[in-house]
Amino acid sequence: MNSELSSLQVQDIGEQGLLERLQRFCPPEIIGDDAAVLVTEPKQSLVVTTDVLVDGVHFSNVTTSPEDAGWRAAAANLSDLAAMGASPLGITIGLGLPGEVRVSWVERLYQGMTECLQQYNTPIVGGDIVRSPITTLAITAFGQVHPNQIIRRSAAQVGNAIVVTGVHGASRAGLELLLHPELGQNLRDTEKTALIKAHQRPQPRLDVLPILQKILASYSPTPPLLSIAGMDSSDGLADAVMQICRTSGVGAILERSQISLPTAFEHWLTKEQALEYALYGGEDFELVLCLPQELAHDLVQQLDQSAAIVGRITSESTIILHDKKEKFPDQVLNLSQGFQHFSH
Amino acid sequence: MNSELSSLQVQDIGEQGLLERLQRFCPPEIIGDDAAVLVTEPKQSLVVTTDVLVDGVHFSNVTTSPEDAGWRAAAANLSDLAAMGASPLGITIGLGLPGEVRVSWVERLYQGMTECLQQYNTPIVGGDIVRSPITTLAITAFGQVHPNQIIRRSAAQVGNAIVVTGVHGASRAGLELLLHPELGQNLRDTEKTALIKAHQRPQPRLDVLPILQKILASYSPTPPLLSIAGMDSSDGLADAVMQICRTSGVGAILERSQISLPTAFEHWLTKEQALEYALYGGEDFELVLCLPQELAHDLVQQLDQSAAIVGRITSESTIILHDKKEKFPDQVLNLSQGFQHFSH
Repeated sequence: MNSELSSLQVQDIGEQGLLERLQRFCPPEIIGDDAAVLVTEPKQSLVVTTDVLVDGVHFSNVTTSPEDAGWRAAAANLSDLAAMGASPLGITIGLGLPGEVRVSWVERLYQGMTECLQQYNTPIVGGDIVRSPITTLAITAFGQVHPNQIIRRSAAQVGNAIVVTGVHGASRAGLELLLHPELGQNLRDTEKTALIKAHQRPQPRLDVLPILQKILASYSPTPPLLSIAGMDSSDGLADAVMQICRTSGVGAILERSQISLPTAFEHWLTKEQALEYALYGGEDFELVLCLPQELAHDLVQQLDQSAAIVGRITSESTIILHDKKEKFPDQVLNLSQGFQHFSH
Repeated sequence: MNSELSSLQVQDIGEQGLLERLQRFCPPEIIGDDAAVLVTEPKQSLVVTTDVLVDGVHFSNVTTSPEDAGWRAAAANLSDLAAMGASPLGITIGLGLPGEVRVSWVERLYQGMTECLQQYNTPIVGGDIVRSPITTLAITAFGQVHPNQIIRRSAAQVGNAIVVTGVHGASRAGLELLLHPELGQNLRDTEKTALIKAHQRPQPRLDVLPILQKILASYSPTPPLLSIAGMDSSDGLADAVMQICRTSGVGAILERSQISLPTAFEHWLTKEQALEYALYGGEDFELVLCLPQELAHDLVQQLDQSAAIVGRITSESTIILHDKKEKFPDQVLNLSQGFQHFSH
């Protein structure tokens, strides 16, 4: 990119000029009308999710390149669809921009979004660009799911196994390494890079859905017999388990040693620190699913080795963190207070 | 509303607290998961449109109450769906709010949106609220339309009649009356009120769609035989005709005397001023449709008396404003330069 191009500002070409430049990121057939038209498959329900991101609050040029900010914004929305069991159909992007924002910054943001979306053949189908005193990004993602395959937070049942689809804590660790490069002296460069990438380029777990659907179909040829509970762990593993338990009116017991951690944590963090990153770090965008034990085992076997059964749903009203080695006492998970020791 | 309640600020209850308060505006069955689920009808295409509105740029407490700002935002998005021939399914709302915004302001915004949406049984199906230095409203609306009944800007054909579904200029006149209350001394109070209401509470013309579909069905039992061109006049009647002509590769001739104006204009504005408001005022949210003459006549007869055939599509590359009384010379419409005299 030459320097003349990269210094061009939004106010130099206007919102309309910018929209025209950004059309190369959108399929040509859905541009130029009052709204975008998409074809949905028959017998699918529509799933819709929306996020607003504000410069300085949700992203910042200090820690995040525009490409990564774009990727992360797209990934978070696709993850919300995955958390409902839905395959993506498209996203719309609303941008509020100060006039002095560089056109190249916006193009790099779109580049990052597109890189994430292309993995799942998800088009940017529309948008709006307006002048604003602060850079603001509003994303709405929509997907489709068969009504019998919707994953809901409220569907957890006593006795269900709790499955996580991958490691937790990596994104938080990556952020720490970005903010404090002096940390992680014991880590190999490849380990550092992998943790930082987990933060900058998280993967929504849409790949889990066809595997889950196949397992469901093998157990029950007519899908309505089973309902899967779950959500994504964007706000942390502990938060996900608590939201599921609260909306389902159940409790849970989690086994410390079963929670999958990045192997790099072993020669860097204490066990307590590692667990805190995993439970409360957030932004790992894994799925936390509650399903019958047999199906849970099948699912974990078909996912990669960081997937695990980390506990089970109970009839209690608490979420207990248990240590089968009995080195640590049982703890009650509590979002507002962090760890709480459980008297026993 | 008591004064204690109305002085409550967003920072007093937080984004989560505000979301909980706003849930009364949403159907209870679609709250509480990672995304909202909507049922679409079979064989319908999905239509999506998005708008971003920024305080001080697109709305302002000086001229607009929060209820009216909410109504107008909802109406603009529903109008985009109507312009595609689509019936609304739902909308999502993304809000960026400074901490010191009053909770009552946000509730009044939602109240206005809901009042507009309820006319069309359209639910608010989801949203996101985040902290931002400036109040920002991002709306995404979803609708559905049979693939054969999509209204596209690009489908205008030479010989088509150009139909407008109602008067133009009322919204702009209403804004002038709000900004300059000393204007319109000749107007009756009811006329003033009606013009101001046209600005504050515009009606998206979703009511036109079933009438249009019925007429189409009577002419062609298998819908694919006819395609309707059109868009809404949110950016002005002149803009709508130009966008349709540009994307369809055609021209148009408009007949001055056929353009429906509010009757109040007669004893307030000069003919030139009235026409300028009608052509360039914007925000009337009427539909501008191009269709075969016979169907156009049927449509106008079945709409109220302010609907009219205002011209026809030509094979030229210009848009001519004609005066059949020959009082005014032909003019070429040009968005960037306003009126241009046409040498003839």
